[in-house]
Amino acid sequence: MLDTPCATQIGEALEAAKSRKTVGEIYFVACGGSFALMLPNQYAVDRESKSIAGFAINAAEFTSRAPRRLGENSIVILCSHSGTTPETVEAARVARAKGALTIALTNVPGSPLDEAAEKTVFYSHAPLSMSADHSAAALYRLTFGILDVREGCSKAPALESALEGLPKLVEGIQASHADKIAAYAEAHKREPVIYTMASGANYGVAYSYAICIYQEMQWIHSAAIHSGEYFHGPFEITDFDVPFVFLMGLGNSRAMDARALAFASKYSKRLTVLDAAEFGLAELPEGLGEYIAPLVFSPLLRAYADKLADAKGHPLSVRRYMWKMDY
Amino acid sequence: MLDTPCATQIGEALEAAKSRKTVGEIYFVACGGSFALMLPNQYAVDRESKSIAGFAINAAEFTSRAPRRLGENSIVILCSHSGTTPETVEAARVARAKGALTIALTNVPGSPLDEAAEKTVFYSHAPLSMSADHSAAALYRLTFGILDVREGCSKAPALESALEGLPKLVEGIQASHADKIAAYAEAHKREPVIYTMASGANYGVAYSYAICIYQEMQWIHSAAIHSGEYFHGPFEITDFDVPFVFLMGLGNSRAMDARALAFASKYSKRLTVLDAAEFGLAELPEGLGEYIAPLVFSPLLRAYADKLADAKGHPLSVRRYMWKMDY
Repeated sequence: MLDTPCATQIGEALEAAKSRKTVGEIYFVACGGSFALMLPNQYAVDRESKSIAGFAINAAEFTSRAPRRLGENSIVILCSHSGTTPETVEAARVARAKGALTIALTNVPGSPLDEAAEKTVFYSHAPLSMSADHSAAALYRLTFGILDVREGCSKAPALESALEGLPKLVEGIQASHADKIAAYAEAHKREPVIYTMASGANYGVAYSYAICIYQEMQWIHSAAIHSGEYFHGPFEITDFDVPFVFLMGLGNSRAMDARALAFASKYSKRLTVLDAAEFGLAELPEGLGEYIAPLVFSPLLRAYADKLADAKGHPLSVRRYMWKMDY
Repeated sequence: MLDTPCATQIGEALEAAKSRKTVGEIYFVACGGSFALMLPNQYAVDRESKSIAGFAINAAEFTSRAPRRLGENSIVILCSHSGTTPETVEAARVARAKGALTIALTNVPGSPLDEAAEKTVFYSHAPLSMSADHSAAALYRLTFGILDVREGCSKAPALESALEGLPKLVEGIQASHADKIAAYAEAHKREPVIYTMASGANYGVAYSYAICIYQEMQWIHSAAIHSGEYFHGPFEITDFDVPFVFLMGLGNSRAMDARALAFASKYSKRLTVLDAAEFGLAELPEGLGEYIAPLVFSPLLRAYADKLADAKGHPLSVRRYMWKMDY
């Protein structure tokens, strides 16, 4: 494993996963932006695992749904940046009481989530960059690592090497997008509605951008549309003046994204297209490119968001409700 | 089982499910409004099944994701109203070739989906009403029926009786909402954005209303917000003039909905609240009320949609792209 600050903690969590008698399922449990991070991990388990089921689920829904399978054969991975999200802390307690192996990801040692879970991985945070110790990458290391210790997964060691080059890769791509970012910010500063679209491993990033950047931090109406769902309802709102941000993925799901983009290009003049094919990930071994794509889209989109916030005069840090009152 | 036109077909599908050596998972595969119908079925499997995993997934995403577990131990339930949805037909072929038991739901005998699947259930269609032979109910009969033949599920026979009273129940509730429906239609006829909100078994109905009614049939911007996700991003777009349609559920998930409603009530003056607690479902045995709620919300919301379409002068049948061109 890459020798990074959180590698030892990931290693300990993987030891615990390895020592379990049976693992039937992994629940990926969180809220909002942290929930969005879980979606590519269910995607990875769906695609790669012979014997383990993956379920990404909002923490309040998880506790309320009370999955009947949850028990000693379950691993529950939870994430909360502050470690204080009450729904996620409660989910950790419920899961641990049921005998599941609970693994928390948080930025804050000693936080309630850290205390509630059996194992904790402390990730580093800097939304404009990406490294093997960022939350999204640490989650992948856990997920592929669990698949490796439980049933063998050659993508796990390959992932470690792929993550090594990420910080420089992201910087370079952000720099090459500078003109496009500036144009996007000016062109969208007065938009009341902006949609995002993606599929496969990138849907979580599209969801996060819709709910955390547009709705939460910019008060712009939004929804993440799945490229495969677009033609079955949502495409009827397409018009010349309706803006979409497209994330074009790699691997099998690219065809879905391409079909949606081909249609939207005919009827909307307001498309922003970010294409993972430009990221130089095709040469990664083991078909890892499609999994790495969201780790690049995420900090790249943050650069778009920063510039939009400047153009609107509405900093990403402004909130009217969040953290300001009880709710 | 209730003696209804599709009961024999459901019975044959259940026989096939029973005769399988092992069933490890059920994939619920469809697109758009039919995909929305699948969501409460994954919910039911999550809540009720000891040994079977449930996955609701868009049909194009299913084929592209190519779940590694898919095989002889899988049941794949697919739904397409016309039976012609290419992505769903393709998913049926892929699943059948892998050895899965494929069960189709469609309105059209002889359609490509009917031909592609091993078993087919033909449902009846009338969006303003609900009966045991409507698609949403037929799906539940299949899902609970499979749980019953595979591992025993006392909710399966109870469901059959609960469905019997549905047509009259729905009629009565629609009638009692007449004034509210008229007021809603007038109040929302010029809205550019309307959000829907729900959780648990009702999230699928909220999703369907957002993408099929608002976006597709009324060209109104929309998104279905999960009540448990609301506080982690989306609630920041709440304001006095932002309209939400709330579906208040039963069972455990009601607390999530109530928390979201309590907050939204303080900051928006544009709430439409439909409450399953008024449906008289609490007396149903086996805690079935929470599962029946979406079967009432769906035709009730259709009555709201019909009136909105009248007030806007924009019939629900109008499309600009769907069925009018190749895409």
